[in-house]
Amino acid sequence: MLRPTSKLRFLHSSVKLQKNVAVVLSGCGVYDGTEVHESSAVLVHLSRAGAEISMFAPDKPQMHTMNHLKGEPMETNRNVLEESARIARGKVQPLSDLKATGFDAVIFPGGFGAAKNLSSFAVDGDAMTVDKDVERVLQDFHTAQKPIGLCCIAPVLAAKVISGCEVTMGSDKEEGGKWPFSGAASGVEAMGAKHIVKPVHESHVDVKNRIVTTPAFMCETAIHEIFDGIGTMVEGVLKLI
Amino acid sequence: MLRPTSKLRFLHSSVKLQKNVAVVLSGCGVYDGTEVHESSAVLVHLSRAGAEISMFAPDKPQMHTMNHLKGEPMETNRNVLEESARIARGKVQPLSDLKATGFDAVIFPGGFGAAKNLSSFAVDGDAMTVDKDVERVLQDFHTAQKPIGLCCIAPVLAAKVISGCEVTMGSDKEEGGKWPFSGAASGVEAMGAKHIVKPVHESHVDVKNRIVTTPAFMCETAIHEIFDGIGTMVEGVLKLI
Repeated sequence: MLRPTSKLRFLHSSVKLQKNVAVVLSGCGVYDGTEVHESSAVLVHLSRAGAEISMFAPDKPQMHTMNHLKGEPMETNRNVLEESARIARGKVQPLSDLKATGFDAVIFPGGFGAAKNLSSFAVDGDAMTVDKDVERVLQDFHTAQKPIGLCCIAPVLAAKVISGCEVTMGSDKEEGGKWPFSGAASGVEAMGAKHIVKPVHESHVDVKNRIVTTPAFMCETAIHEIFDGIGTMVEGVLKLI
Repeated sequence: MLRPTSKLRFLHSSVKLQKNVAVVLSGCGVYDGTEVHESSAVLVHLSRAGAEISMFAPDKPQMHTMNHLKGEPMETNRNVLEESARIARGKVQPLSDLKATGFDAVIFPGGFGAAKNLSSFAVDGDAMTVDKDVERVLQDFHTAQKPIGLCCIAPVLAAKVISGCEVTMGSDKEEGGKWPFSGAASGVEAMGAKHIVKPVHESHVDVKNRIVTTPAFMCETAIHEIFDGIGTMVEGVLKLI
């Protein structure tokens, strides 16, 4: 027998089947922007789940532009929104236009762009500042109780903006090179968040704050494991809608 | 009963389990380089199959650099190898160093880079020229009977270099915007190749020439369908090894 609540839920879902998810990019390339494979995994998993995807990025200069071959900064800098358009195939909007109204969830892929362009974590550690639109977006989605997904280094954003939240960035120990950026875990603890240790193929759900995080490229591992871990994050976010 | 050949194959595979696959990039971004999601899909599927992956790209200037937000060329040009390093997370070698010896297969993801930096198809159509290292690599793998995988617009490279081969680039009709680049099919036919019509979730195997192709972003569709289609191409390539 269908309980009235189940029936109501069914009627509701028949009216609005599609979930609208905003994805926030920070450039294009692991060392100065969004990690391209993390963003791609987010889009593939959202697409498979039937979600409507809209992409956003700050319209401002990158902190700097890295030559990814040589691992050193280049003379000419680039714009975050224009470079993000390489991932978005042109379809990306200024982050200043992103409002929680009209979206069911927001997801931040990782890459150093999250620690260089969306915040200053790469330079300032736990004394970092957060881009004002990133801060506003996180606060708005959090206040509206809409889920927030983040991976790799991006959980530092939630750690700073959403007081006392729980995030995972994988392990808090280097484990012989498996977790080369494990020091970031103490960074989020210093900002007042709780770091939860998780393997790369899992994500952590902070039910109270509706925040879902997964380690992704914080872990030195095969790319399909990162793809699958991000799948659990996307699934977790969609379940919370 | 095991036939001797099967036993030999088993013994052989126990000696060398891992398949070494070269992936050739052409920059980073759909409009002037490698389509990032196609390359990511290639890497995820190869990784899941346990293949050892090595990435290569030509060390030369791009044909031009596109502002992916505005859809117009930028003043400052970029280097194909340096931009490819954004996809390869720094681990990419000059294409001039790629020899068929030591690899079991080679895969070319798509994106306009294949038609602008690896060949001149975007400008010259079927009168195109092919980058000399791309030509050499294709000829060497073909001569060694090692499989070649290509997707999206990249099959034009095989069409030009490997006489009379069969490739798919999806449909040869626009079908109301579903196949916006369907004109490319007549381009490969004009170069003496045979175009095979295939849906986005399938690939075509030219058994004689050991060439596997799939339409990918030649089709205007959801990104997970492109991911899955590329999966069939990677599977087809690995089966031919």
